[in-house]
Amino acid sequence: MSDAPSPTTPADAVGYEHEHHHDGPHGYASDKEAYLKRMRRIEGQVRGIARMIDEDVYCIDVLTQVSAVTKALQSVSLALVEDHLGHCVVDAARQSPEDGAAKVREAAEAIGRLVRS
Amino acid sequence: MSDAPSPTTPADAVGYEHEHHHDGPHGYASDKEAYLKRMRRIEGQVRGIARMIDEDVYCIDVLTQVSAVTKALQSVSLALVEDHLGHCVVDAARQSPEDGAAKVREAAEAIGRLVRS
Amino acid sequence: MSDAPSPTTPADAVGYEHEHHHDGPHGYASDKEAYLKRMRRIEGQVRGIARMIDEDVYCIDVLTQVSAVTKALQSVSLALVEDHLGHCVVDAARQSPEDGAAKVREAAEAIGRLVRS
Amino acid sequence: MSDAPSPTTPADAVGYEHEHHHDGPHGYASDKEAYLKRMRRIEGQVRGIARMIDEDVYCIDVLTQVSAVTKALQSVSLALVEDHLGHCVVDAARQSPEDGAAKVREAAEAIGRLVRS
Repeated sequence: MSDAPSPTTPADAVGYEHEHHHDGPHGYASDKEAYLKRMRRIEGQVRGIARMIDEDVYCIDVLTQVSAVTKALQSVSLALVEDHLGHCVVDAARQSPEDGAAKVREAAEAIGRLVRS
Repeated sequence: MSDAPSPTTPADAVGYEHEHHHDGPHGYASDKEAYLKRMRRIEGQVRGIARMIDEDVYCIDVLTQVSAVTKALQSVSLALVEDHLGHCVVDAARQSPEDGAAKVREAAEAIGRLVRS
Repeated sequence: MSDAPSPTTPADAVGYEHEHHHDGPHGYASDKEAYLKRMRRIEGQVRGIARMIDEDVYCIDVLTQVSAVTKALQSVSLALVEDHLGHCVVDAARQSPEDGAAKVREAAEAIGRLVRS
Repeated sequence: MSDAPSPTTPADAVGYEHEHHHDGPHGYASDKEAYLKRMRRIEGQVRGIARMIDEDVYCIDVLTQVSAVTKALQSVSLALVEDHLGHCVVDAARQSPEDGAAKVREAAEAIGRLVRS
């Protein structure tokens, strides 16, 4: 990602309520290709599940695939969490304790959603 | 789904190791359209996450979407479990205790994978 | 467990809203000692976590123990699910399709709570 | 907790392999009483589950309680994660990028265990 935020970034669009730093790439920027590759694979797995359902594959085999996709998504989210902690949260902490505390609160909420999903 | 199993069902293909009854529709057959609609929505959400990553959306917002997709997949899997229990497992139980026990064992393993994923 | 339900069974007490068969032992009855042994072990682990907190053990080590206890509880719940499916649900299915359907609905709700917790 | 680490802290005992700062209270120190109160409640719930199993309470009611205890443990672990991020990880980040990176790596692993348990 360029160092300056694009004015058309969806992050500015309605629906994204979190304020965030545009002052540099986000934590996952250096691994973007790897993330995209994983998401394309997950997209293929999701289409595969739909195909299995359409072809009346045995319920248990469909469930096995759903578990596999869930694990893959979990893996992506844990990598995002680590990248976010190591960049956005650490950078904020080094700015000031208040910036760090705000980022920690936000990260903890996101981690809570992951644990409960 | 047709009432008779197609001989080209992927269930017969390499990789699907579970024996299963072809003697009637599987549990989810009557809701197939509903399942396919949900999987198409999930597929769209997965493509949306890839787009967010590609556009360098803030990590937390990406994580929020990943949690949403995971919840949606979980919901599909729980519906599949209920359909499977109510049809395949119940039908096997009514055939004989041994058939029921085998289907219960298999269902319990699948449920275990869901709980751990 | 005796084959006849005890009149003082907490199952009859306020708070337990599910109707259930008293006409024989519940699914887990034959493994009761094994379940009790596992619950005693889990109780010890929970007390151990409290001790760690009281003694200011490093956060990460406490979290590791919490994950271990959660896995142990998950394991107990999956065993209970399998016993329940193999006895209560199968028995109901063999009684009638309606009995089976009711037990399946109830089991699916419980499995949903497990997957989401 | 006292401000100085006890030399008999189990953290120094065999089994705790993580190095950690003793240079001040850990993240959860100021909430220790609250944590201990929650753990005592969880301990009581675990004993309650054992009692239910011993008294042959209906499987579904036992499962409901297991889900409740798992949720309570999850809640404790998320509070520990937030305290750890807000103190140990932020403090390390303010020391140096390397200290921060090490603490982030460790925290991400612990969060991964939580998500998968």
